[in-house]
Amino acid sequence: MRGKIKILDIETGNLAIFINPEDAEQWRIHPNDLVKIESGKRYIYGSAFIGNIVEKGEIGISKDVLSIHQFSNGEIVSLSPAGTPESVKYIKKKMRGEKLKKVEIETIVRDIVDRKLRNTEISAFVSAIEINGLDMEEIAALTIAMAETGDMLDIERKPIMDIHSIGGVPGNKTNVIVVPIVAAAGLTIPKTSSRAITSAAGTADVVEVLTNVTLTLEEIKRIVEKIGACLVWGGALNLAPADDLMIHVERRLSLDPRGLMLASIMAKKYAIGSQYILIDIPTGKGAKVESMEEARSLARDFIELGKRLGQYVEVAITYGGQPIGYTVGPALEAKEALETLMTGRGPGSLVEKAIGLAGLLLEMGGAAPKGKGKIIAREILEKGKAYQKMREIIEEQGGDPDIKPEDIPIGDKTYTIHAQTNGYVTAIDNRGITAIAREAGAPEDKGAGIRLHVKVGDKVKEGDPLFTIHAESESRLDKAIVLARRLEPIKIEGMVLQVIENL
Amino acid sequence: MRGKIKILDIETGNLAIFINPEDAEQWRIHPNDLVKIESGKRYIYGSAFIGNIVEKGEIGISKDVLSIHQFSNGEIVSLSPAGTPESVKYIKKKMRGEKLKKVEIETIVRDIVDRKLRNTEISAFVSAIEINGLDMEEIAALTIAMAETGDMLDIERKPIMDIHSIGGVPGNKTNVIVVPIVAAAGLTIPKTSSRAITSAAGTADVVEVLTNVTLTLEEIKRIVEKIGACLVWGGALNLAPADDLMIHVERRLSLDPRGLMLASIMAKKYAIGSQYILIDIPTGKGAKVESMEEARSLARDFIELGKRLGQYVEVAITYGGQPIGYTVGPALEAKEALETLMTGRGPGSLVEKAIGLAGLLLEMGGAAPKGKGKIIAREILEKGKAYQKMREIIEEQGGDPDIKPEDIPIGDKTYTIHAQTNGYVTAIDNRGITAIAREAGAPEDKGAGIRLHVKVGDKVKEGDPLFTIHAESESRLDKAIVLARRLEPIKIEGMVLQVIENL
Repeated sequence: MRGKIKILDIETGNLAIFINPEDAEQWRIHPNDLVKIESGKRYIYGSAFIGNIVEKGEIGISKDVLSIHQFSNGEIVSLSPAGTPESVKYIKKKMRGEKLKKVEIETIVRDIVDRKLRNTEISAFVSAIEINGLDMEEIAALTIAMAETGDMLDIERKPIMDIHSIGGVPGNKTNVIVVPIVAAAGLTIPKTSSRAITSAAGTADVVEVLTNVTLTLEEIKRIVEKIGACLVWGGALNLAPADDLMIHVERRLSLDPRGLMLASIMAKKYAIGSQYILIDIPTGKGAKVESMEEARSLARDFIELGKRLGQYVEVAITYGGQPIGYTVGPALEAKEALETLMTGRGPGSLVEKAIGLAGLLLEMGGAAPKGKGKIIAREILEKGKAYQKMREIIEEQGGDPDIKPEDIPIGDKTYTIHAQTNGYVTAIDNRGITAIAREAGAPEDKGAGIRLHVKVGDKVKEGDPLFTIHAESESRLDKAIVLARRLEPIKIEGMVLQVIENL
Repeated sequence: MRGKIKILDIETGNLAIFINPEDAEQWRIHPNDLVKIESGKRYIYGSAFIGNIVEKGEIGISKDVLSIHQFSNGEIVSLSPAGTPESVKYIKKKMRGEKLKKVEIETIVRDIVDRKLRNTEISAFVSAIEINGLDMEEIAALTIAMAETGDMLDIERKPIMDIHSIGGVPGNKTNVIVVPIVAAAGLTIPKTSSRAITSAAGTADVVEVLTNVTLTLEEIKRIVEKIGACLVWGGALNLAPADDLMIHVERRLSLDPRGLMLASIMAKKYAIGSQYILIDIPTGKGAKVESMEEARSLARDFIELGKRLGQYVEVAITYGGQPIGYTVGPALEAKEALETLMTGRGPGSLVEKAIGLAGLLLEMGGAAPKGKGKIIAREILEKGKAYQKMREIIEEQGGDPDIKPEDIPIGDKTYTIHAQTNGYVTAIDNRGITAIAREAGAPEDKGAGIRLHVKVGDKVKEGDPLFTIHAESESRLDKAIVLARRLEPIKIEGMVLQVIENL
């Protein structure tokens, strides 16, 4: 059928295309059928919803559709039912445990981007990969296909450095310090980051406290070519869009098959043109990677995949068994990072990690002789050159470079948990800390989070403060306190772990 | 939040729950998030859609929701975001290849029925089963869980007979004849059937040409207790509702894992209270089951599953290599079945199959001595007793018992395909015949379909009619003709199968 576009003020999280019941009957379209709308070279697939909120001859589209193509009210488009996408055959091939060809993977990825494959089919693909795996050749094909079906950045400065930290460790604002150090040394590092998905703050959430992180690819190109760095939110860009759609499904199933994790990370790097990539794998209890053995195996995969993509990859396995620094939550972390950049000093776990990683990047990029990277990185940080570069980043991205740590608003509803016994801190539970910070409102409430007063190994006396919860509202604070009491995320040697009552 | 129900005239094929952007922000609900609405004992899960088509404080529901629970406009309900359902853990367990416990399967099925698991999660479950399989204990648990989470029928007549034909063979109106024969012999057979999904006519579509097939469970109980039989559409009933939701996903992936097929068929039988079940497995090229080996293995599984469910199952492997009878499509098949019932005579492939299957049921139910079932069934058919019972069924279900074959309207736009050579018919391609009948408009256009003029083994001369396409509109007829020319579904010995031109 041909019909007139009507933009509806509805967001469904998927692409919804509304047609009138009369049209549906005439064109034999049933609710949730896959349909295609097209006009000239623009086309997109979506799910048919049927109802009287559009007239006969009108084709309603949810706002989600506009994020893909700009259709305008009243525009005439054609709509047709779509059959089962060809790529379903290849998904079934992976279910049978067979290896997929490059062209088959490309077809799947193209169909995901076109929304021809919806969550149901993507879920089958993700499940098949979870069960039957992908070999390195398939992962490389997937990575390239994901990158090439989205926008690509071409920065006219070489070499392009990049860093990525595997998630799971709360308080990991390290890259907010690494990036300005590396750029201050004259290297180019167009850093894109994600927002928190299951954590209390992603790097993009933290940087957003200091400056704008939602930029276009053109703005990024201009800024990076001018000052050598950026710290932006990758989600605002159309980099490897298939990845976001797959991650949505993985998250709902709490799956994270290795092949997809590798492809997901490296596709974004490939799209941004990164040539020298440092992968940080925080390893330890409560991190995404818990054992050294797993970390080493993952490291080998990253290096091997990089080779196939023409990228030089190094991997740093770092300690991820407790939070980095003393703060968790966007504003608290931004404050800690800014203080560290301004003074050149900060918590050991943060500073040592940042200059260690930055040093490796300096060596990889030829800005420091082998073995001297960390020393030079420390000098750049301590002499204020990293802070100077951070000011440029903040300013170019549209923020106020004069922002001071004390300007950053922190949630003023607070509650402090105290030690109930004397002893040494033996463990800080990453997952517990994250859960409490999220319950307090992070990452949506920027000022919410946790300030730790102790780290593992510290000696405490009964009554000493262990950590303070910050929230922006009393109700969130109350919920976080309840959770904190239940989880007791900081363990002290000699502490009674559980009391079994004699009922 | 609490809000006022607003019923929206929208069908989405899933459960959609609309909230205003202000409420969404306040309650931190994102598009497509899983949310729960409840009021008293009624609750249901659905996908959050966000938009201004509802006011702040209103909770819009798509019409699909009303098929589960009767909510009324203005009713106050509570809405809350739902986390990841517990049953996702068990789906992941099946992904790891582990055996599921009864209670785990029950939780998955319950969550499917509550719509807590949506297509994305169901797809992961179906994929895991496709890859890792289910053992017989799991299949039995799944069958019972699917039946018990829906409505169950308790008919006060014993024994309850039932028959099910595995699909794939066009023109299979056999059970329209089997059911009245069995009931005419005094046995009880509450037959529910499906509509066509991928075929040109399901038994329910065929019977609907003769009488109403959309009945409530109460009406079915009354009718079956009175006359011993019914021929109704199972989809109108809430029998094993989880099955329909899984089948939707299987269909989109064109998957049909054996464990789910067995559970799907037997759950409906279990819910309707069937005790003696005959499974008809049409076997041959282009049928769902193509080899005798596969048919026998499937037969053993049906019998074994029946034992675990307390049902006595027999299996008939029948010839499924070409269409049954001479007609394909709802009205054409209804006409052929009615003629056969009225005259006691009809195409050999139809009559012999019908009395063969009916005979087995008579023996299973004790209405015929072992080895005499077919003779008695033939007698019942030829003496008009089956037709008399069919009249009762038609009348009780709300149709006109005096309906004559010539009253049935058949699509009057026709086109006949003729033999291009002399020879014997060596094959009739089931899939091709189905595809052409569907292209002509079946099953939605009841009068559309195909009338065969020949069957396998017939001798034809060049120019003899092979089959006639019937359609209700010229445009559908044209499309069907194009497809028929391309597919050439009837093969004649000596026919040139393809010409390679010398270009």
